[in-house]
Amino acid sequence: MFKANITITLRPSILDPQGKAMQHALHDLGHASVAQVRAGKHIEMLIEAASAAEAEHVATKACEQLLANAVMEDFAVEIEELESAPVA
Amino acid sequence: MFKANITITLRPSILDPQGKAMQHALHDLGHASVAQVRAGKHIEMLIEAASAAEAEHVATKACEQLLANAVMEDFAVEIEELESAPVA
Repeated sequence: MFKANITITLRPSILDPQGKAMQHALHDLGHASVAQVRAGKHIEMLIEAASAAEAEHVATKACEQLLANAVMEDFAVEIEELESAPVA
Repeated sequence: MFKANITITLRPSILDPQGKAMQHALHDLGHASVAQVRAGKHIEMLIEAASAAEAEHVATKACEQLLANAVMEDFAVEIEELESAPVA
């Protein structure tokens, strides 16, 4: 069993009103040192696979086909091997 | 200038219907090996600070006061130092 940690971020050229709203709220709370905020998605996926390479292939396909918007978003996949299988 | 990579995840005991929906959609697309999906948030923050410790303090405060829901979510903060300051 492998765990894929997937990070999906807006491309730098895409405006991020959600991040801007967070930044303004942080300034109002007194955190003037926060110069920029960008909001993205973090997805954790448990994958049954024979190897880390196979798990990475599945996670990458999942991003391309469903999770990420290729026009506006970039994604990164990190794979770690799990000893046992946690199930929620 | 420091960059804080913040990961906000639902606590394991909290049901995640968004993750379940992603998992069902991935099964429908043929990815039967995906055993679990959990959805969270990834936030990137640029912080003007004198040290990594100060930047981590600001990012942690931001999570506690605004970004994360302490009842239902956990958060993790990673700090990296930037050479120059990218501004979008």
